[in-house]
Amino acid sequence: MENVLIIGLGLMGGSIAKDLKNTGNYRILGIDHDKSHEQEALKLGWLDEIVSIEKVSKAAWVILAVPVNHLPTLAVEVLNRVADNTIVFDMGSIKHPLCKAIAHHPKRTQLVAVHPIAGTEYSGPTAAIANLFKRKLTIICEPHLTCPQKLEKTIQLWKSLGARIQLMDSVEHDKHLAYVSHLSHISSFMLGKTVLEIEHDERQIFNLAGSGFESTVRLAKSAPPTWAPIFLQNHQHILQSLDEYIDNLQQFRNLIQQQDEQQLTAIMHQCNHVGEILAGIALKNHQEP
Amino acid sequence: MENVLIIGLGLMGGSIAKDLKNTGNYRILGIDHDKSHEQEALKLGWLDEIVSIEKVSKAAWVILAVPVNHLPTLAVEVLNRVADNTIVFDMGSIKHPLCKAIAHHPKRTQLVAVHPIAGTEYSGPTAAIANLFKRKLTIICEPHLTCPQKLEKTIQLWKSLGARIQLMDSVEHDKHLAYVSHLSHISSFMLGKTVLEIEHDERQIFNLAGSGFESTVRLAKSAPPTWAPIFLQNHQHILQSLDEYIDNLQQFRNLIQQQDEQQLTAIMHQCNHVGEILAGIALKNHQEP
Repeated sequence: MENVLIIGLGLMGGSIAKDLKNTGNYRILGIDHDKSHEQEALKLGWLDEIVSIEKVSKAAWVILAVPVNHLPTLAVEVLNRVADNTIVFDMGSIKHPLCKAIAHHPKRTQLVAVHPIAGTEYSGPTAAIANLFKRKLTIICEPHLTCPQKLEKTIQLWKSLGARIQLMDSVEHDKHLAYVSHLSHISSFMLGKTVLEIEHDERQIFNLAGSGFESTVRLAKSAPPTWAPIFLQNHQHILQSLDEYIDNLQQFRNLIQQQDEQQLTAIMHQCNHVGEILAGIALKNHQEP
Repeated sequence: MENVLIIGLGLMGGSIAKDLKNTGNYRILGIDHDKSHEQEALKLGWLDEIVSIEKVSKAAWVILAVPVNHLPTLAVEVLNRVADNTIVFDMGSIKHPLCKAIAHHPKRTQLVAVHPIAGTEYSGPTAAIANLFKRKLTIICEPHLTCPQKLEKTIQLWKSLGARIQLMDSVEHDKHLAYVSHLSHISSFMLGKTVLEIEHDERQIFNLAGSGFESTVRLAKSAPPTWAPIFLQNHQHILQSLDEYIDNLQQFRNLIQQQDEQQLTAIMHQCNHVGEILAGIALKNHQEP
């Protein structure tokens, strides 16, 4: 039985707690700055014990599952306290600021920078779900800076949860995620805002919404305390992707104004290609063990 | 056994054909400018007979299920040919240009302007699915311009397919749909375009996409021949909604650049409200018979 100390008992921390607890091999210790989350997690049954930060020195694993703005300082504080055999990993959506903050820490080799690409638009302990990471891609950044044995054990742990592992540079990671995740969230938040603003009589307009609107606006339900820090930490890549997105919208807008059916159709045909790519990936993921 | 003549044998025409045929009360005649669609529909079993436009005069019902740019002229041509007891309805996503085109037609009272808010991102005869309209909102525009008995029969037909009916002004309809449907499609198409452009090595970036990206980009698979005409016909309302959307994106972008966490968080909290509204509507729809 290994002690796992999870800091941050929300969607991500809670979901991994559930999976680890279900194996029967781990005892789950937890900390959350929101005391009601700690109590909820205990009640939900996937947390065994609320502990204080000092317990870091006694854990086999320490998992950092807090919003990304707290990760760099928390990672330093945790590394300051860990025993030599402890493995620390985070679950944050941005990797470079964390990697940079601990680059010269004497215990850098004990931390693995992990980003499981999995989640929902819900948050808090009640949002935690079992098997969240099954078949999902999980990225590990700067693997060469972690002690090989600790890296290997971490990879095995994630594989045991059903995750597929990919190793990556942290700057590359943050840039790519700006395009395939952060931009989607901003697009969805602003779509929600635009429709809320136009409609004085909300029920009226939202009644007319079909499944297409629901699909594009789903991420507007996401938790601001999670996402504001992501947007701010990854601002460089996000501003680039957002500027390109706004440019594309502006060009499409002008083609509509010019009634250029041929060009509009040609652009949409290009975009249809996204469907084929996603279908190809879905098929590949499905086939993998 | 009533004859139903459907013009346009794609997702919408095919889906209503399937439902009507399943009742056992209708014989389905069909026309499509794409002869391969006619053959496919016959093979799929929901089309009984391929006919020519002259058959309009013998049908109890004529359903116009073509792209919206063809609707105004097709509606006039069909009304020119129909017998006095025939009911004509369309299934288009834009209503004002159609209503305007037939406003002074001597047989205006025989047409019902219908828009079922239902669909998928797929197209063509193979995309047709049974029960597509069940529990979905179906809008009827300018009901006072249709003969009351024909209007009533049409409402009953749609209710028999499980649809919920709402009556509406056609200009209001087109404006609202610009916000809750057309804007979502443009947002999704351009998101797909932006990500395709950034990535030379497509597999790499798309591999990193989670369910959030898939959800926001799903509509980018939609058929250009359906959507280009919608964007062009409804350009006035779409340009307005698109300009507001671009403004919101630009403001959010500037807040990220200024690292204004407080304001970003406040805006996202407002947007979260969309989730509550959509949940409320889903609950209401679920409770309705």
